[in-house]
Amino acid sequence: MGRTSDAREKILGAAQSLIELRGYSALGVAEICKAAGVPKGSFYYFFASKEALALATIDEHWAEQERAWKHILTGAAEPLQRLRRLCEATEAAQRAGQQSCGTVSGCLFGNLTLELSNQTEAIRARLQEIFDAQVEMIDAVIAEARARDEVTVTDTREAARSVVAQLEGQVLFAKLYNSTRRLGPLWANCLALLGARAPGEVAAGL
Amino acid sequence: MGRTSDAREKILGAAQSLIELRGYSALGVAEICKAAGVPKGSFYYFFASKEALALATIDEHWAEQERAWKHILTGAAEPLQRLRRLCEATEAAQRAGQQSCGTVSGCLFGNLTLELSNQTEAIRARLQEIFDAQVEMIDAVIAEARARDEVTVTDTREAARSVVAQLEGQVLFAKLYNSTRRLGPLWANCLALLGARAPGEVAAGL
Repeated sequence: MGRTSDAREKILGAAQSLIELRGYSALGVAEICKAAGVPKGSFYYFFASKEALALATIDEHWAEQERAWKHILTGAAEPLQRLRRLCEATEAAQRAGQQSCGTVSGCLFGNLTLELSNQTEAIRARLQEIFDAQVEMIDAVIAEARARDEVTVTDTREAARSVVAQLEGQVLFAKLYNSTRRLGPLWANCLALLGARAPGEVAAGL
Repeated sequence: MGRTSDAREKILGAAQSLIELRGYSALGVAEICKAAGVPKGSFYYFFASKEALALATIDEHWAEQERAWKHILTGAAEPLQRLRRLCEATEAAQRAGQQSCGTVSGCLFGNLTLELSNQTEAIRARLQEIFDAQVEMIDAVIAEARARDEVTVTDTREAARSVVAQLEGQVLFAKLYNSTRRLGPLWANCLALLGARAPGEVAAGL
């Protein structure tokens, strides 16, 4: 029991690393099993298909990221500070990825959206749920900032979408230029998208 | 001569459609030749490898898009109006793609960036040149708007990057949700990123 559950984790870990490095289509089940160090028979014991593995990889990565986002976005800090920490955490996560594998691998969900969303409806639906959840979490923080009169946007849902779009777009550039410095302006761009008062004004409660 | 050059065009046309629908890694040379209606021998007469075809497809698509962008962005209209037309043209292009193939296929350059940029340096370099050129064209327009005191951003290069990032991020969502309506807020988001004066103020010359 311990062994088989261990094999599933190994397959998931190898799949995530390989998908981040080379995308989904370029991978074969045999290669994933080799990287995981498990026999190919184990694969089909745990996963009905390569697509089922992709869905499980997405779920596993989202479970981890959702915990991190919730920790940051529902914390005790002031709302805009929480959003700022999310930008910083995004940069830190990409930097850690670059240090461990030599190249910025971007956002797993963004990568799979552009590679696969118009090919498999199951993956499209799962990725939609994840981005919907991200937008909802950010929307709640923007609504708090708005109640404190720190931002001027009126449609907080649309503003949350523009923040996630900016994040995905800048992460795309960080991957393209293999440079996490591309993520430096993310926070200032978010403030602009939210119609935030100048930080000094916010601090002074104007 | 006429025949062979026709075969090259057919291969490029088929490659672009197939890459937009299914990405690069999922495709084989045989499949591309079948879709193009040319014998496989023709492929290697024109292209040394599948990567060479990808580069040619990128160049062909950029030649066309660069012409369209230059036409819009260096036209006689006021600078912010030109940027607005670029947003509208982006939405129109995605809508036309959706009507012809049933699904929003996104930006070819963004798709290949997330699928391939950390795998092949030749493709990474080419895509960097293209996004650099896009940023430079938009930077020039923002600088014009700034000289007219219509926007408040000071770092026009960084602002241009944030606009292209927003565009790529929103196109990613248009693809994910298979809805070009996702591109509706693009223009308002660009105005926010540029720190544009309210449209009424700009119109009134305030």
